[in-house]
Order: sequence, then C-alpha cells, then structure tokens
Amino acid sequence: MTAGVAGVLPDSIDLNSDLGESFGRWVLGDDEAVLELVTSANVACGFHAGDPSTLRRTCVLAAARGVVVGAQVGYRDLAGFGRRFVDVPPAELADEIVYQLGALDGTCRVAGTAVRYVKPHGALYNAVVHHRAQAAAVGAAVRDYDPGLPVLGLPGSELLRAADAAGLRTVPEFFADRGYTRDATLVARTEPGALLHDPAEAAARVLRLLSDGVVRTVGGTDVRVRAESICVHGDSPGAVGIAAAVRRGLERAGVTPKAFA
Amino acid sequence: MTAGVAGVLPDSIDLNSDLGESFGRWVLGDDEAVLELVTSANVACGFHAGDPSTLRRTCVLAAARGVVVGAQVGYRDLAGFGRRFVDVPPAELADEIVYQLGALDGTCRVAGTAVRYVKPHGALYNAVVHHRAQAAAVGAAVRDYDPGLPVLGLPGSELLRAADAAGLRTVPEFFADRGYTRDATLVARTEPGALLHDPAEAAARVLRLLSDGVVRTVGGTDVRVRAESICVHGDSPGAVGIAAAVRRGLERAGVTPKAFA
Amino acid sequence: MTAGVAGVLPDSIDLNSDLGESFGRWVLGDDEAVLELVTSANVACGFHAGDPSTLRRTCVLAAARGVVVGAQVGYRDLAGFGRRFVDVPPAELADEIVYQLGALDGTCRVAGTAVRYVKPHGALYNAVVHHRAQAAAVGAAVRDYDPGLPVLGLPGSELLRAADAAGLRTVPEFFADRGYTRDATLVARTEPGALLHDPAEAAARVLRLLSDGVVRTVGGTDVRVRAESICVHGDSPGAVGIAAAVRRGLERAGVTPKAFA
Amino acid sequence: MTAGVAGVLPDSIDLNSDLGESFGRWVLGDDEAVLELVTSANVACGFHAGDPSTLRRTCVLAAARGVVVGAQVGYRDLAGFGRRFVDVPPAELADEIVYQLGALDGTCRVAGTAVRYVKPHGALYNAVVHHRAQAAAVGAAVRDYDPGLPVLGLPGSELLRAADAAGLRTVPEFFADRGYTRDATLVARTEPGALLHDPAEAAARVLRLLSDGVVRTVGGTDVRVRAESICVHGDSPGAVGIAAAVRRGLERAGVTPKAFA
Repeated sequence: MTAGVAGVLPDSIDLNSDLGESFGRWVLGDDEAVLELVTSANVACGFHAGDPSTLRRTCVLAAARGVVVGAQVGYRDLAGFGRRFVDVPPAELADEIVYQLGALDGTCRVAGTAVRYVKPHGALYNAVVHHRAQAAAVGAAVRDYDPGLPVLGLPGSELLRAADAAGLRTVPEFFADRGYTRDATLVARTEPGALLHDPAEAAARVLRLLSDGVVRTVGGTDVRVRAESICVHGDSPGAVGIAAAVRRGLERAGVTPKAFA
Repeated sequence: MTAGVAGVLPDSIDLNSDLGESFGRWVLGDDEAVLELVTSANVACGFHAGDPSTLRRTCVLAAARGVVVGAQVGYRDLAGFGRRFVDVPPAELADEIVYQLGALDGTCRVAGTAVRYVKPHGALYNAVVHHRAQAAAVGAAVRDYDPGLPVLGLPGSELLRAADAAGLRTVPEFFADRGYTRDATLVARTEPGALLHDPAEAAARVLRLLSDGVVRTVGGTDVRVRAESICVHGDSPGAVGIAAAVRRGLERAGVTPKAFA
Repeated sequence: MTAGVAGVLPDSIDLNSDLGESFGRWVLGDDEAVLELVTSANVACGFHAGDPSTLRRTCVLAAARGVVVGAQVGYRDLAGFGRRFVDVPPAELADEIVYQLGALDGTCRVAGTAVRYVKPHGALYNAVVHHRAQAAAVGAAVRDYDPGLPVLGLPGSELLRAADAAGLRTVPEFFADRGYTRDATLVARTEPGALLHDPAEAAARVLRLLSDGVVRTVGGTDVRVRAESICVHGDSPGAVGIAAAVRRGLERAGVTPKAFA
Repeated sequence: MTAGVAGVLPDSIDLNSDLGESFGRWVLGDDEAVLELVTSANVACGFHAGDPSTLRRTCVLAAARGVVVGAQVGYRDLAGFGRRFVDVPPAELADEIVYQLGALDGTCRVAGTAVRYVKPHGALYNAVVHHRAQAAAVGAAVRDYDPGLPVLGLPGSELLRAADAAGLRTVPEFFADRGYTRDATLVARTEPGALLHDPAEAAARVLRLLSDGVVRTVGGTDVRVRAESICVHGDSPGAVGIAAAVRRGLERAGVTPKAFA
C-alpha cells in the first residue's frame, strides 16, 4: 500500500530489515528476534556481509516464518561492511550483482523459498541515490536476472528511476529510525541526528508518515516522503526495541504488516 | 558414451576443461582457444578462482559456442587457488557449494545458459576421492540444489559413491595429460610424472583408454579406468596444444566430441 | 616462572589472552576488560581475524596499560576464523607468518610498543602440536624475523620442539578454561568437556597447576602440565568472568601476574 | 638528481617500477627482467596485489641485485587490483598503510633489505593527487611508521604536499610510458593516448624531460614536469621493451641509473 493519502492510514504496510549480516565467527544482529517483527528480510549476499551458512540459516528461518526474502546486494568489501563507496565500473558492478542474486537465490532454493526483491546496501544504497551509472548497472543486473523482481530504494533516487526505466517495479521506502534532511534523503551516519533512539518517537513518525505522507526533518521542518515499505533495524538491542515499537504501533492503529512482494 | 568396451571405440565422448579461472587483473588460461576444443566447460565459481565478470564472459562465450557449462566448485581459498586442503566442516562445505552453484547458475541465466553438471576443483577434487564426509557434503549440496545435475569425478572416488547414494547421475572422467598410479588415481603434482607434455602421447593414451579401457601408469603397468568424459587443460600454451591434439586424434579416429549433459 | 615445583607456588606468572579479534563492523570480545586482567596480549594479525584499525587500537591500549604484545599468527582464513586446518605448503606458511609478524610489529611501532613473542592461533595452534613440517615452518619464520622472540605453545608440542631447535626461547602454557585429555592435550571444541564454565573451578585449577604441576583430565585422572603462562579468554562475558576469577585467585594466593617477555 | 635544469642532462636518475604484483597461482609481470633494468622496486604489499611468498621472493631478488625496495601501498581491493577508488575513512586508510608498511618491511628484513620509500598504487595514487584527506592520511601513516622514508608521487600532487607538511622527503616522478594532459597529470587509462607503445618514443621523451624539463601532452603542447625518478612498467612484454629502451637511452646519453633512496 502506498502511504499518506489524505490523512487516512493504509490497511497494510511492509516492514523490511537487514538480516543475515553475520560472518563466520562474528555474529551481528538478532536475526531470530527481527524475523518475528518484519514481513520482508533483506538478506546479505556475501559480498559485504554474510557467509553461506549464515545465509542458508537465515533463509530457512525466513521461510519458516513466512517472511519474504530480498537480496541485500552490496559492494565487494567485507572489511568495510559495504559502507565505503567503491568506484566499480558499472559493467563490473552489474556482474557482481548478478552473482550475488544467483548465490542468494540458490541458497533460497534449498531453503524452500526464493529471492523476491532486491535492495542495495550501505554505500551502494547511498551512491545510487545520485550515481546514475551505478544505478543503471543495478537496474540492468536485476532486469537481466529476473525482470519480475521489484527494487526497494529511496523515493526519488536514481536507483528507482533506473529500475523503472528497466521495466522493473519500484518500491519506495521510509526509514523508521533514521534522520531525514529537507530534501528527503538520510542524514549521513557521521552527522548528528542520523539515528533515532526513542522507540515511541519512531513509532509515531511511522504512523504520521503513513497517514500524512510527511516526516519531520533534522532541521525541524516537514518533508513529503512516498513509501510502500518501512525499514527497521536489528543490529543492536536498541534497534530491535525500535522495530518492535513500530510494529506494535502499526497493529494498534489497525495497519497490518504485510509483505509487498 | 562409456569407453573401453572390447576394443571398440565409442561413437562419441565428452571433452571437459577448467575455464573462467582468471581473477580481476590476473589472466589465466586461453579460454577462447579452449572453448573451440571442448564440449563441457568447468567454470570456476569465485571461491578459488573467477570473478563475476570473468564468469559472465566465460558463460556467454560457452553459450555462443554450444559448450555445456558445469560448476567448478572449490574451497574458499583464492590465495591458494583451491589447491590446499581445507578442513571445512561438512555442513559448511555443503552451504558453500550451494552458494557457488547459485552464483554460477545466476550468471549462466543472464548468459542464456544454465549450470548442467558439477565438478569439484583442485584440493577438493582430491580430498573427495577419499574423504567421505566432504564427499557426502558435495553430494547433499548438489541434490538439495538440483537433483538433476550430474557429478563429474574420479572413477572409484568417494565423491561418485556419495553422489550415487544421493540419487545423482555420476560421470567418471579420464585425464589426458596427467600421470596415473597403479590404483588408478592421479600422480600428485609434486611428484615426477604428474604431467604429460607430449601432445601425441596424450592423444594416443586417450584413444587407448577409449578402445581398451586401460592406461599405462607411471610404474609402467596398465590399470583399468572407466570414463565418460576426457579432461584436458588450457592454463598454458602447452596444455592447449595437448587439448588440440586430443581432439584431432578423436576426430581422426571417428569419435565425435559430444557433451554428456 | 615455571610452575609446580614441589607444591610451592611461584612468585609470579604470566596471564595471556587473545585480543584484537574484531573485524571491521564485527566486534568480538571485550578487549578493554581483558587488558585490565592479563599481562600478555596475543594480538591477531589480520589473516584469521583483526583489521588494521582494530590492531592499532588494541596495541595502543596494550601499550598504555603496560601489557606485552605478542603476535597471534594464523591461517589465511577469515571465513573460518582460522579454526579450520589448511594444508599450506610449509614454505608458504613461513612467508605468511613473516608477513603477519611484520604487519603487527609495524602497527606496534606506531603504537609505541613492539611484538615481543609469537603464539599460533586456532587450527594452526592445534596442527603444530603434531604437524612437524608446519611446526618447523613457524619456527623458521620466527627465527628469520627475530631470533629474540619467544614462542608460546602447548608443552610437549612439535611447535616448541621446532622453536627450540631453531634456537628460540619456548614458553609452555596452561589453559585455565579448557578441558584436558590424559595425554595433556586440549579436548577438541566439538567434544564434551572442552570448555569450563565455572570461574571458581578455573581459578582453583590454575592454583593447583601452579603448586602441584598437574591438572584433572576429563577422564578424571591427573596429568602433569609444565607451564610458564596461563591462557584465559575474553570472547564472551562468561570468559571474562573466568579470567577475572583466575587473576583474583592468583593475587589472593600471593602470585603476581607478570609478563614472561 | 632533479631533471631539466637548462638543457643539461643530470649525471644520474632513478628508474622505478611496480613489482611483486603476482597473486598465488596468478602471475603478473616479468619481475626478473625488470629487476635487471630498474634501480627502485615498488613492491606490492598484499592489499591490492602480492601474496607473502611473492613479496619475499621479490625482495630477495631485489636485494641480490642491489635494487632498492619501496612499499607500493594500495586500497584493500584484490578483486579490483587497487584500481577502483575506495572512499576509506582517512584514519582507517592510515592504519591500512601502516599495516602494509610493516608487512613488507618484515618481509624485507628476512630478505636482507628494508623498505626505503613509499609509493601509492593505482586508484590511491590517482586519488591523492587531489584528495586532501586521503593524502594527509598517507603522509601521517608514513611519518608515524618512519619519518625517514621518502614518498614518491606525482609532482604537484596533494600527496607530495601532505608528505612535505609531515616532514617527509618528497620525490616527484615522471612516467615514461603514460600520456600527459596539459595540467601535467596522467591521461586516464580509459582515454585515448593513455599509454605509449613505442620504445624509442618513450626513451626520447625521458631524455627530453631530463634535459629540458618538459613533456609533449596528448594535446600537442608542452608542459613542465619536475622529476627525480622515472617510472617504467613491466606487466607486459611491450612494457619491458619500453623499460629496456629507456635504460639504454639513458646510458647512451651518459645518465647513470641510480636509486634516489
């Protein structure tokens, strides 16, 4: 459901979160807790996070809970967790994304599910807000792999434009726990106000977004954001608390969490 | 065709070779030349060799020439090119193989083809001759991914036994340019006689194998080898010369190169 | 001080622990807490764990607290955290260890300290208990890099034999929180009894080892262990609790924690 | 010697080249041939190229020929060979450079030599022409590691400015086989004119640079370049031919190849 038409809450909305981000001995996030809260799991694909066993376990758990799996594609940068822009030539980036899609899709297959959408991660997510050539590479890779896969991204981004041009369904999202600038982009993680910490505030923001289509920026003004999915996080106990509050807030307001794909 | 029934040459036989083993800036092998000679391409999957762009280019070339693509799965060991045994717990190994199968299969999909068989590489190939738990992990991974995929391996190996037990088709192979021991295994690369260098000798060995089912060992005696595919190499100019001689020898003897899958 | 001479406690003993094992976004262990407890820090070198920033931060903290830094060298295997045996040819292993020693030593230099000993990690540690060629490679690498560096390892191991043969000082160690077999080796992590969980029991074992030179095995009998250092862990809250109990126990018994190097 | 004062050739000049860039099974460049031609070897440090055994072998060969070793530091990007800009936070970049310096210096130590200068590689080299924060990070890393190490780089670059500000000796270089723009930077590898292919032309350019201090740009005009070292390449037979021609040209003109460090 698209949010924010004339003050009326939608019947349902998708909740997505990044999962499968552990790597070998290193555990990150409480995937089991988050899978109880969300409807769509952006599962890492091994390039910036996620080893094959973590991916398989995550896909099995998601399938068991009826959570839809999406491919959280990223730069090939384990050391940087995909949070550093890499100036990959677009054709190579497309090939890397096809590889990641196939790897996760194969893992989903043995787990009894399938990749049903694509969402870039970290620095790639941020880059394709503005970087046309990389955005086009992501769009082309998804189209070549499976033109039926929707792309989840920031509303107004080059990514969604490129995905649309490639004939793909586009799904704009809203971040429950991230600060917004007045041009409706995310406050950088290195800036003050980048992260919200109050579960109640996050839940209220989501409801306001869904009913009125706006969010209060770090500057104190409102900005319009179009969203068909709400992103929550699970990589810290605080983040899980926020995700739980958002879900509870939705349910109390009569909005059913429901996957978009 | 199974080789070596009562001195009669088969009508056809498969020729397989390792391809797609370049990595980024580093080029290995003359893939274009080898693709003119073989009927089955064991394409690396990125864990011991092969970056996503190399894989895609290789799969596109194979598809264009009608060469069947198989997944050359290996240990996660770029620094060792998959030639060092790694004591991976079997469950993790199975997950790593599923991941590799999916990655290459996805790459094949955008190249207009598909993974049609599986062949382990390097130290994994050698390990699963005897290592039951790792052999079983490979078999389980292939069966879980796609029970229709044949497994190519050394005749008499635990791998083929495990694959058979998993309900998979097994395809035994003969190495045109590798020395054999009297128990029909390969002479280790560190030993004398591991590699043949004479194209004519390699071609003659292949024909003898196909007609009589035997190969002369480094010790000078004959040993029986059952084979439905002939493996040639392409990672040096000498190896390509051997592969070309083997193919010419087959054609002159009226044996048509033909993929098994 | 060597422990266990005729029921008399030594004046001092070294406490060592693995540190610097985080990697990029993935945090492992409470290094700050452990650095308050130990006298020697086995700092990872980036091959099985530890990124350059983690190493530098750890070395700076160690230097500030007067904790001696040793090089925790391991297999090149981030995905397996160095816990999987890799059959690296000995000459390559030696080169990899020199590389790791130099990398950590250079990091120590900018942190105002230096590598003062060497201790293999994980599967390498276990391999060189018996694997002569890899043990000799470690000994040769350390000797070539700096013959003044002691090697910390399991008493009776091939590693200490090889280090001794290479003219290096050898330092046998005892594990406060690991189960022992009757031949004085560690119970494998996959077996029952591999890990102790009771801080008081661990502290008592250490004191008994120091006064009597014996430890109770998983089989219930005693076995002699010679030790000049006690290894504690810090990769879980429970492990830190054990380390703290061991240190408290030593101090109450009048044994001063003191680095061997 | 600084080149190009009033049409008079200098008595001597340094010749530098990238070496040690093989990785495991993948061979790149003819290091033995190049070591016969150059006076300074920029040896890779394992982050964008070079495994520990390759580094050690290269350092041993360099030491045997009296070729000075420098650290060819780069981004952590084997898949991209360090040729893709990575937006590493400056503090992390400094830590990564310290790690690389230590690793190569330790390898040099066992080879009977030492790191005597530093030169960034690939995309890092190009980035620090303009990127102040990364340039400052390189300068700080070298100063913290060893303030006696000179930094080799593009004349006029932010790198040399930052190195100078950090109290380091700076060494500007000229590329014998790369095209120049009219602002004295290199033509990008993706542009026409990026690479020279004629050995005689390269040799003549070097002599003109040394006597007159200018180089003809791709646009056809001359631009002044200050240089105390000449960079040649060895990663293809053609490149080795150019390097040989440059050296022969220098010797015929009475300019002795001589290391700057």
